[in-house]
Amino acid sequence: MRIAYVVPGPMSKGPMGLAEMRRRETLLNSWAFPGTEVTVVDVPDGPASIESAYEEALCVPATINLIMKCERDGFDAAIIGCFGDPGLEAARELTTMPVVGPCESSLLLAAGLGHKFSILTIFDSMVAGQEFLAYKAGVRDKLASVRATGIPVLDLMKRPEQTKARLVETAALCVKQDRADAFLFGCMTMSFLDLAEEISAAVGAPAVNAGKAALKHAETLVSMGLSHSKTAFPMPMKMQAGQPFEALRVA
Amino acid sequence: MRIAYVVPGPMSKGPMGLAEMRRRETLLNSWAFPGTEVTVVDVPDGPASIESAYEEALCVPATINLIMKCERDGFDAAIIGCFGDPGLEAARELTTMPVVGPCESSLLLAAGLGHKFSILTIFDSMVAGQEFLAYKAGVRDKLASVRATGIPVLDLMKRPEQTKARLVETAALCVKQDRADAFLFGCMTMSFLDLAEEISAAVGAPAVNAGKAALKHAETLVSMGLSHSKTAFPMPMKMQAGQPFEALRVA
Amino acid sequence: MRIAYVVPGPMSKGPMGLAEMRRRETLLNSWAFPGTEVTVVDVPDGPASIESAYEEALCVPATINLIMKCERDGFDAAIIGCFGDPGLEAARELTTMPVVGPCESSLLLAAGLGHKFSILTIFDSMVAGQEFLAYKAGVRDKLASVRATGIPVLDLMKRPEQTKARLVETAALCVKQDRADAFLFGCMTMSFLDLAEEISAAVGAPAVNAGKAALKHAETLVSMGLSHSKTAFPMPMKMQAGQPFEALRVA
Amino acid sequence: MRIAYVVPGPMSKGPMGLAEMRRRETLLNSWAFPGTEVTVVDVPDGPASIESAYEEALCVPATINLIMKCERDGFDAAIIGCFGDPGLEAARELTTMPVVGPCESSLLLAAGLGHKFSILTIFDSMVAGQEFLAYKAGVRDKLASVRATGIPVLDLMKRPEQTKARLVETAALCVKQDRADAFLFGCMTMSFLDLAEEISAAVGAPAVNAGKAALKHAETLVSMGLSHSKTAFPMPMKMQAGQPFEALRVA
Amino acid sequence: MRIAYVVPGPMSKGPMGLAEMRRRETLLNSWAFPGTEVTVVDVPDGPASIESAYEEALCVPATINLIMKCERDGFDAAIIGCFGDPGLEAARELTTMPVVGPCESSLLLAAGLGHKFSILTIFDSMVAGQEFLAYKAGVRDKLASVRATGIPVLDLMKRPEQTKARLVETAALCVKQDRADAFLFGCMTMSFLDLAEEISAAVGAPAVNAGKAALKHAETLVSMGLSHSKTAFPMPMKMQAGQPFEALRVA
Amino acid sequence: MRIAYVVPGPMSKGPMGLAEMRRRETLLNSWAFPGTEVTVVDVPDGPASIESAYEEALCVPATINLIMKCERDGFDAAIIGCFGDPGLEAARELTTMPVVGPCESSLLLAAGLGHKFSILTIFDSMVAGQEFLAYKAGVRDKLASVRATGIPVLDLMKRPEQTKARLVETAALCVKQDRADAFLFGCMTMSFLDLAEEISAAVGAPAVNAGKAALKHAETLVSMGLSHSKTAFPMPMKMQAGQPFEALRVA
Repeated sequence: MRIAYVVPGPMSKGPMGLAEMRRRETLLNSWAFPGTEVTVVDVPDGPASIESAYEEALCVPATINLIMKCERDGFDAAIIGCFGDPGLEAARELTTMPVVGPCESSLLLAAGLGHKFSILTIFDSMVAGQEFLAYKAGVRDKLASVRATGIPVLDLMKRPEQTKARLVETAALCVKQDRADAFLFGCMTMSFLDLAEEISAAVGAPAVNAGKAALKHAETLVSMGLSHSKTAFPMPMKMQAGQPFEALRVA
Repeated sequence: MRIAYVVPGPMSKGPMGLAEMRRRETLLNSWAFPGTEVTVVDVPDGPASIESAYEEALCVPATINLIMKCERDGFDAAIIGCFGDPGLEAARELTTMPVVGPCESSLLLAAGLGHKFSILTIFDSMVAGQEFLAYKAGVRDKLASVRATGIPVLDLMKRPEQTKARLVETAALCVKQDRADAFLFGCMTMSFLDLAEEISAAVGAPAVNAGKAALKHAETLVSMGLSHSKTAFPMPMKMQAGQPFEALRVA
Repeated sequence: MRIAYVVPGPMSKGPMGLAEMRRRETLLNSWAFPGTEVTVVDVPDGPASIESAYEEALCVPATINLIMKCERDGFDAAIIGCFGDPGLEAARELTTMPVVGPCESSLLLAAGLGHKFSILTIFDSMVAGQEFLAYKAGVRDKLASVRATGIPVLDLMKRPEQTKARLVETAALCVKQDRADAFLFGCMTMSFLDLAEEISAAVGAPAVNAGKAALKHAETLVSMGLSHSKTAFPMPMKMQAGQPFEALRVA
Repeated sequence: MRIAYVVPGPMSKGPMGLAEMRRRETLLNSWAFPGTEVTVVDVPDGPASIESAYEEALCVPATINLIMKCERDGFDAAIIGCFGDPGLEAARELTTMPVVGPCESSLLLAAGLGHKFSILTIFDSMVAGQEFLAYKAGVRDKLASVRATGIPVLDLMKRPEQTKARLVETAALCVKQDRADAFLFGCMTMSFLDLAEEISAAVGAPAVNAGKAALKHAETLVSMGLSHSKTAFPMPMKMQAGQPFEALRVA
Repeated sequence: MRIAYVVPGPMSKGPMGLAEMRRRETLLNSWAFPGTEVTVVDVPDGPASIESAYEEALCVPATINLIMKCERDGFDAAIIGCFGDPGLEAARELTTMPVVGPCESSLLLAAGLGHKFSILTIFDSMVAGQEFLAYKAGVRDKLASVRATGIPVLDLMKRPEQTKARLVETAALCVKQDRADAFLFGCMTMSFLDLAEEISAAVGAPAVNAGKAALKHAETLVSMGLSHSKTAFPMPMKMQAGQPFEALRVA
Repeated sequence: MRIAYVVPGPMSKGPMGLAEMRRRETLLNSWAFPGTEVTVVDVPDGPASIESAYEEALCVPATINLIMKCERDGFDAAIIGCFGDPGLEAARELTTMPVVGPCESSLLLAAGLGHKFSILTIFDSMVAGQEFLAYKAGVRDKLASVRATGIPVLDLMKRPEQTKARLVETAALCVKQDRADAFLFGCMTMSFLDLAEEISAAVGAPAVNAGKAALKHAETLVSMGLSHSKTAFPMPMKMQAGQPFEALRVA
């Protein structure tokens, strides 16, 4: 099967650049089941990184366009490459192939690992937003806590040892103080550090890589012949009534 | 005080046109407390109407720009002129003046009218989204039901008698079957039909006009010297670190 | 419009006296929208202050009588002047004009200021009661905490600097430890200290004056032509069946 | 042990009269464990029956006085003889002996009979209030429904066959449509019809007599040496500070 | 009435032995209402003590057999003598006499003592399980906390002073930090230390002995002619269709 | 990877027999990702089918023994082959390899397909139990309904056309009346009919085969190097203290 991993910002033009995109593609393919091929693509313009509601909103229109193109190009599924799952519902309205988001995917996976789990996020200002996402995913009752490391997305890869230490320390608080049985990386750059096993061993509780979780979720859906329900995510009514996609926008 | 009512679609270019914008402005000013002046503005491009998650996402970037301009232009508060409150959190991140959304405003008002209330919406496909907005507003426990009339936004004003009959019939089901004590119009075009009193009398329960509710909410906040909390809606971190708003977007 | 602010205890006969009642009346009128006139009245007998379930119960019968009289006297709305909203439901059963309570009004207002809010109360023994009121208002999910200052109602005005310091300190704990984005004064005497702006500035989060919130709530309802639903608060059945109000009591 | 059953209205002066009080006393004593003696007392003035929030509020001050007198007179526990549990919290503040309410007692008993239970009440207008009492008792999650028979309290005993038929019919709807596994009589006059066994047999699910449930609750607490927690129901602060009970009221 | 207290492990063969079984029987009879006779019986094989989900599962088949025998032998009710209420639902499927579990019984009793209560348990690993039991009992909203003493079941009686000190210390944390108004002993061996009054006095909040609570629950049900609902706990379908109990097992 | 599918009843000795076990093994292997090998095993004795709490309890001890043997035999993961997930927590206490249950697996998968989903079960008496499993899995908020077909497990395969018709009809009610966006087969025999695609097409909403879901869940966990958290499911304390597994049982 062919899966598109759609980065909802212009990563190839930003500080991380094409090299990081290719590195993530290689990692994704190394994580995949035999027979899965993952391609990483990014949008032409949008936010450098997504750390606020505004930056999240900014990326959606271009991301939807790219996901629709992926479906036309024959991909079997798409992953939205940002932990906030920006545009997930809109994308599902406009596709029939499965579209998954790393937040929803990793929340549902973490829910099966124990009684409670926590999310490691970037800033305190993102805590409430991720609590809402847990509610939307239906697993709010299992969320022990969301704790921020305070390291901006674009700095996570700069000082890896410091990042790792902070992740271990924050995850340990989730387990000891919040009674989390597992935790997940609430940021794709965090996840693509590929440190889940190491940090899990240090903390003594399972750690979920949100990128891997989204990949497995997509592979599972394709393999089972399942996709999101069109009763939940119907095509916009104007398109059901015969108007083309382009007509939704007036300018 | 001066309040901007920001239509998140290019209404002046669409089927409703500038005349409808002016009519709504006149209504809003007639509803206002003495000393309040309301100006209706719309964005240059975006969706013709908002009936799906995609159309909602489509409108946000331009709407935020316009709200920011309103604050620079000296308005005391802004109302986002769509019941889905598109971009409400993003707008609050980028402003200090109060920004209100008719959904949140009318939910909080309806919550004080009785034990339970219902929302009248457009399509069945919008029910889950509005239940989620009620959760976000914090009043999910008081939501008796969301019921759809099935009349598209752009058709609501075409056959007013039919629309009114459907609204009465749907609201009556909310009261009789779902035990709602009050109901609200979950669509601005529905609200600007200005039929709340008539429909309330026919149904025997209070009806909340979401446009009026948003206006009163904005007037209340300005009058009390209150605005949304910056701990909940902080300026994006990159701007806090000194980057200009424009730098958030990379192209 | 004319609004009655009904003090549910014999304030004019107590330690605060008529002077405090007139001071509050002056403040309320200064907070009102143009065209609103507020009159403060008190009941002839009842508790000196309300700090327990018993004292709350004690005040209700006389308060209802006075609110009914206000409606007969042509007031457009009434505010019950105690944060516990004593007799709110009973008063609504016996009136058609809007009757609001500062607790419900300020909870619904605070719910729109951020993700979570807190209540500052008098004694620890009142925490559970105010959590119930938040449930009744429908916003329990947004209540971050209720924290007590430990200063009795009748002492709040005696040492204003100490009171202010304790309020700042308690509110700061709500914001820092309980993740409240806003807070409200869960006592009318606290609210009428008129320190919301000052304390808000010190704490860095919006502060809601419950007296102002109730006033704006009443003004909003009257201005919108709304009142509480009679399906939620019906006239007692014996009165619906033709008996007079006086017949409800047997002695 | 000696238990006072305190009727919160002047039953002896009303249409039911002293004969009904004595009949209830005889029934209560017949239901008691060996060694328990129940005395039924009523207040000197108050509502003829309690079918609204106003009538409930009306009865509380006198009821508290009578319960305090019962404690001084050496009773081991008191039952508030109205299903709305009027004044339960206030009474607990002012006593150390156990005070129970038939609503709380029967809800907690019914919760142990199956997955869900329902309440049979008098009027539709009382549904929300009883849902709130279920929340207060902590068992809201187990409440399948509250259904009203529509027969006023003072008419329940007049046409017993009709009353019984209506109770069977209403309870059957709770079981069949609302998935209740058990149901309880949400009114003391309903409970004192002493029809629980008969109606249970007709419906095929256990029926809880709220009067019996309150009696067993009181007997259990006394027998275990338990009473309500004074951290939850502390004596009013003014009394803790040395003032007498009488000083709580100013006139 | 005759009540069987069924120990779901082979206590008479274990370290506590027959002497402890007889001591518990004596205590139970001393706690009972006049006219109640309690007999303590144990199963022939199973776990030495129950401190894990596995040990709980291990005891159920033999326990059900013994409870069914008790019903055939004419007992009026049975108590499952382990705080985890192992097999409670299965036992209710196969009996018509009341079967109660100390966990459910004591949770429902504690719920009536204040706003919130806590459970004292053995190990941290049992916290989540007891939270689930509180959900099942329907009173999850009233559970302030579950706190573990860390003393294994079989050690509780060895150093009584140390055990008592730890129970006081743990209960005090529940009251002070978790706002519990009452607490209960989440283990039968803890309950049969018969220290509830002493620990309650030391902590300043009511303490519920789960063994006593179960006994009173059973006595209450028998005395009221009530038992668990057969709509909630029906006889296995194969038996309803005529097969004998023995046919449920294939070997 | 090698996965054991452990049937918790003696299927090879029952009416379905070894042929059905081999058929299920073939199906499971046909559903698996390349490189996965599934082996179906059953326990030597236990219930013929599991349709009550008693039958569920009956199967657990032997099932745990068999799962432990599978881990010793080098399997990478085990699936408990009954939708009630009997013994799931106990099995996780005694293994480090992943053990999954079809109920939890399919609930978590269905939660990602839309806003709400339903479960198709066997008998009405199983509804409450499955609601509780949804709570345990953490997705209770997304469960639209549990609806029973009324066809006993052992009859499902006898009249396939009738079974299929009943499944379509029941699922359609879930979608139309309960607003489910997806549904799942709450019984393994239902799932192994392998009719998900056909029934999904007839109903117009995704259908989840619980057997496939459990397999994908196990494959995902093994592929990600994850297993259940040992903080949630610790080895029994006596074994942590050095006693052998066998010592947990006393006879």
